[in-house]
Amino acid sequence: MHMSAEEFRRYGREVVDWIADYHSRIESLPVQSTVEPGGVRGLLPAHPPLAAEGFDGVLRDLESVILPGITHWQHPSFFGFYPANASGPAMLAELLSAGLGVQGMMWATSPACTELEQHMLDWLVELLDLPAAFRSDGAGGGVIQDTASTAILTALLAALHRVSGGEVRRSGVRAGAYAVYASSQVHSAVPKAVVMAGLGEASLRTVPVDPVTQAMDVGELRRMLAADVAAGVRPVLVVAAAGTTSTAAFDPVLEIGRVCREVGAWLHVDAAYAGVAAVCPELRFVNAGLEYADSYCTNPHKWLLTNFDCDAFYVADRAPLLGALSVLPEFLRNAASESGAVVDYRDWHVQLGRRFRALKLWAVIRWYGVEGLRAHIRGHVTLAAEFAAWVRADKRFELVSASLGLVTFRLRGGRTEELHSALNGSGRIYLTHTRVNDLYTLRFAIGGTHTGGAHVGAAWELIAGTVTGMGELDRPERGMRPEPEIQPDS
Amino acid sequence: MHMSAEEFRRYGREVVDWIADYHSRIESLPVQSTVEPGGVRGLLPAHPPLAAEGFDGVLRDLESVILPGITHWQHPSFFGFYPANASGPAMLAELLSAGLGVQGMMWATSPACTELEQHMLDWLVELLDLPAAFRSDGAGGGVIQDTASTAILTALLAALHRVSGGEVRRSGVRAGAYAVYASSQVHSAVPKAVVMAGLGEASLRTVPVDPVTQAMDVGELRRMLAADVAAGVRPVLVVAAAGTTSTAAFDPVLEIGRVCREVGAWLHVDAAYAGVAAVCPELRFVNAGLEYADSYCTNPHKWLLTNFDCDAFYVADRAPLLGALSVLPEFLRNAASESGAVVDYRDWHVQLGRRFRALKLWAVIRWYGVEGLRAHIRGHVTLAAEFAAWVRADKRFELVSASLGLVTFRLRGGRTEELHSALNGSGRIYLTHTRVNDLYTLRFAIGGTHTGGAHVGAAWELIAGTVTGMGELDRPERGMRPEPEIQPDS
Repeated sequence: MHMSAEEFRRYGREVVDWIADYHSRIESLPVQSTVEPGGVRGLLPAHPPLAAEGFDGVLRDLESVILPGITHWQHPSFFGFYPANASGPAMLAELLSAGLGVQGMMWATSPACTELEQHMLDWLVELLDLPAAFRSDGAGGGVIQDTASTAILTALLAALHRVSGGEVRRSGVRAGAYAVYASSQVHSAVPKAVVMAGLGEASLRTVPVDPVTQAMDVGELRRMLAADVAAGVRPVLVVAAAGTTSTAAFDPVLEIGRVCREVGAWLHVDAAYAGVAAVCPELRFVNAGLEYADSYCTNPHKWLLTNFDCDAFYVADRAPLLGALSVLPEFLRNAASESGAVVDYRDWHVQLGRRFRALKLWAVIRWYGVEGLRAHIRGHVTLAAEFAAWVRADKRFELVSASLGLVTFRLRGGRTEELHSALNGSGRIYLTHTRVNDLYTLRFAIGGTHTGGAHVGAAWELIAGTVTGMGELDRPERGMRPEPEIQPDS
Repeated sequence: MHMSAEEFRRYGREVVDWIADYHSRIESLPVQSTVEPGGVRGLLPAHPPLAAEGFDGVLRDLESVILPGITHWQHPSFFGFYPANASGPAMLAELLSAGLGVQGMMWATSPACTELEQHMLDWLVELLDLPAAFRSDGAGGGVIQDTASTAILTALLAALHRVSGGEVRRSGVRAGAYAVYASSQVHSAVPKAVVMAGLGEASLRTVPVDPVTQAMDVGELRRMLAADVAAGVRPVLVVAAAGTTSTAAFDPVLEIGRVCREVGAWLHVDAAYAGVAAVCPELRFVNAGLEYADSYCTNPHKWLLTNFDCDAFYVADRAPLLGALSVLPEFLRNAASESGAVVDYRDWHVQLGRRFRALKLWAVIRWYGVEGLRAHIRGHVTLAAEFAAWVRADKRFELVSASLGLVTFRLRGGRTEELHSALNGSGRIYLTHTRVNDLYTLRFAIGGTHTGGAHVGAAWELIAGTVTGMGELDRPERGMRPEPEIQPDS
């Protein structure tokens, strides 16, 4: 009935080969799935099988049922959203984690799961030159969260605990008593966290950004904070973006941090995409101001070759986090936890159960080494700068921003959305969009594991050629002015 | 620099073989790790490697560094907590998910990821004979959450949205205005969710249980609800357990559901462990009253051979869930979502990003078929009944409960904690404990993928023999009375 060891070896090889083949032929597949709604379900049996079917059918249906419904995030010409890059060592470590099948909710339930995670997050502090306060040997520490969204919710809960002296945990939120601040460019995870924590949308203060840099206006933040304090509203949390979702813009974290200290607000720095760039010494501007951060996160699952999910979340002081989230029912009591000598990660996040995700980071860091990780990031930043130069040199386009591996641009002729449809419809590349200063803008995010110069060059040829085919776009409309450019190191 | 296709094939085979070997020799390893705090970290290099190291070191260190720090959840003599059973098809599907590396946050980002998930959750409705309202073709639907803890938080947020008519989303929680109800046997995830949602611990009403059945006292629930309503407090959510964490006790869901309807409270049924037992027609008492459930969850990652994480969460009406959690920033806008023809799972849970977890369920259901899944559950329930009979027949022991695959018991002589230490210290089996009516009680949870009669028999021999070795336990203390027994189908 169960899969025998020999069957596991046989099907395991088939799966490994299937994945190797998939990555070898991925460039022959259209990047974006073209199925219509219901197109996948329509191919699936209405009812589960009564008798055992084996594994061959799964592999067969992967080809005929699943692949047509896949938008290939690992395709080297996938330039959408931010990358979610995977790599061979990460995939195999994910399999090892599934094979071990341990629960890491507490140190005692598998000490290696907790200790390797602490160690990898300390390694990452060194790799990224993060503040020493984030290391596990001081008052703070790091933990793997599933996503930056959950990390923001976790930061908010810790901040509420600190600012209320535990009152929120005991008695709940008083509507209107607290406020959270983030820029208009903030990720949607912030309003979602504000709602989930019971503060309500009305508690979120949206700070305007500079229209050129898209960075938070700290003068406005200061005014909003002062107005709230004067009105008896307690500032809880400021979320600063080190790399926004739209344009990878950087909020002035250092200045924001100083303001936070003045009013006692918690500073969370969301560097989900950009943070890992600090593996390169020349890109450590992304860490500016982190010494003021009460919490911080960056996602190795975006741009550091570690397959989803792996968000590295740090606090400078773990006491308010544990104060907000610790629970200790009888069935979890054990001598190691009560000795105080160990960390129990169940109290560091929303969930109780957790997989052995540190194995992925361990495998990736050892496979690539610091040098390999640097080469990976550096290569994409260089390619993005080249791509931005091509956009800038072509008068039909307007370069909106260029920061790290992300370039955003639009057509001067105003048919950007049409261009977007044509590009994604080609199946050859995949881009997503945003709005910058309320104008439809394309995002070109370079970060795929196997994305190289040839892919970026071909993408630019396709983009430029598609515009040529659209016709009548060569002459900028009268009155259009190019926006000033944002440099990667600004 | 990157792992080539050939390297992936080679190391992939080594990893597959390592896992096959691990499971083949797992019974030669002590179930519980014996490392001391720091024992794993002490073997790891202080700094990350500068140069690439390859993959051989990871496989080597798995043996020498990681395995000694593992408590083997997949060991057939692991009887602790509830099982977290994995299986060959699930592990290989996890690898496929990592290999595809897609983000399923929206239908558009990989339609197959969303549609296979909808389909598998509909299959599960049929497999478990759940209410039709949970199917995706009506007002409700299912989604894979990471854990039952997150499912409870999600249910609470949906309940708050419904009961407040959206006011909580807009303006936040008013401390003291809402209350949540669960029994004293409730999982710690409920108080944690109440805290995270901003209600505060003071909003949680702990309903007493019947000391024999450990099931919620519905008369007390009714009185508490009435008292709150009279005091102007709004009942939001009642969490009923279909299988508690301590003893797999069943709250009277049907009666609770009727009470919930009267006061307009949301009923969430937490069947994290026990729900999957309904794959067997003769065990469908676990579904009693589900027609009153507004939301429900069960974990295939506990007892249905699907490796963590895979919690199946259902709502009878998805509108309040989407009302509570939906967000739509520009960068996620797309034609498919705006057409209303598709489901975007980003709005069904806390996180934004999500893996392709439905592949695991698909592979497991097809590998085993309905018959195989039934045989798996049935076998463990039969073994648990045998084990309970042995406990009952040995006058040195007191049988506290027996429900599905879980048996709880204690020594009449009062040295149960000492017995526990001796058993886990032996390395041959692993048990965890709870307190029932405030007495230290051992939990014996049968649910491992490869746990069979020989393992359960050997465990009982070890337990009985260890007690014999402890001496002076044969005579029950005067005045001790055996507690009435709880039957699996009570």
